[in-house]
Amino acid sequence: MKTTFGPQRLMFPCPTGLIVTGTMEKANIVTISWISLLTSSPPTIGISVGTKGYSGSMIKKGSEFTVNIASVDIMVEADFCGITSGRDTDKFARTGLTKIESKIVKPPIIKECPLNLECVLVSSGMFGTTNHFAGKIVETHIDTDKLSETGDHKSFSIEAINPLIYIGGAREYRQIGKKVGDAYTIGKNLL
Amino acid sequence: MKTTFGPQRLMFPCPTGLIVTGTMEKANIVTISWISLLTSSPPTIGISVGTKGYSGSMIKKGSEFTVNIASVDIMVEADFCGITSGRDTDKFARTGLTKIESKIVKPPIIKECPLNLECVLVSSGMFGTTNHFAGKIVETHIDTDKLSETGDHKSFSIEAINPLIYIGGAREYRQIGKKVGDAYTIGKNLL
Repeated sequence: MKTTFGPQRLMFPCPTGLIVTGTMEKANIVTISWISLLTSSPPTIGISVGTKGYSGSMIKKGSEFTVNIASVDIMVEADFCGITSGRDTDKFARTGLTKIESKIVKPPIIKECPLNLECVLVSSGMFGTTNHFAGKIVETHIDTDKLSETGDHKSFSIEAINPLIYIGGAREYRQIGKKVGDAYTIGKNLL
Repeated sequence: MKTTFGPQRLMFPCPTGLIVTGTMEKANIVTISWISLLTSSPPTIGISVGTKGYSGSMIKKGSEFTVNIASVDIMVEADFCGITSGRDTDKFARTGLTKIESKIVKPPIIKECPLNLECVLVSSGMFGTTNHFAGKIVETHIDTDKLSETGDHKSFSIEAINPLIYIGGAREYRQIGKKVGDAYTIGKNLL
């Protein structure tokens, strides 16, 4: 039995991403959950950012941004960066989050975020009143202490990373739960 | 301390979405995690689908699709629909998933998925070797028994919905964990 609600902006679960723009000297952060990978050739990520906000204009100006995935540990800081504007707030100063110089792009990455992607803008689109920016991922950083002994980029422990999950509609943050299966494997039971 | 890995296709956590194309008589399913909302005016969702697959051609042909969010209960079926092709497999028949007629679009929705979005294609883009389809959400369905007494579309219990979370890179499925905070509220502690 289903209940219908007409057109609604509703989809979950979502990641919580801190988008950094600007430079080491003058950087801004905005928190968004409308993020997804677009292609693996070359690795590219898409982010949706409101047209009225400060970050959209910063991306258009600088053509670079970093995507920093939040952990539960910085939930308060992440939420703060989503409800304030960089036009009148120095969010790094107010939150105490730490800038680390990126390897390739001008905007810094955030030390407290366990996964960091350095991105170069490859296309800008517009849907309704929202910008859609596609960024080519030029560098990937993961907290070393969240990797296993093999040390490759797929060897991270998602429990150690403890990503902050955003549930739109319900407007709540959740942590990750237990593992239930192996992708690309468990479906073979039906082959 | 960070370890760097060069350009990688890595972002998490992601939803697990079953995209249905075609018609009630001949429908196909593909499973993807590269999904995100694009704008709320009007509600629009973006999905990334490989150019070689059957579903991309079906979306181009029919200009409509449904996005059905998987629960942990159908993990095996969801994984199966991601590792097989609709060119040679009737995925509804093989998985036993149930078609329900959509209210507005031709492709059906999936009964066993707790959230269903009916979408009409509004734009097609391309990133690398991947199509990016933007669909205007024209109808939203939620399992009635997952709603609270208020009954509005934001009143769902995410624990009752029990969404299947995909962790790219680690290639594992996880369930949702406990609530850690209220979005748009907890950050006010730093104001």
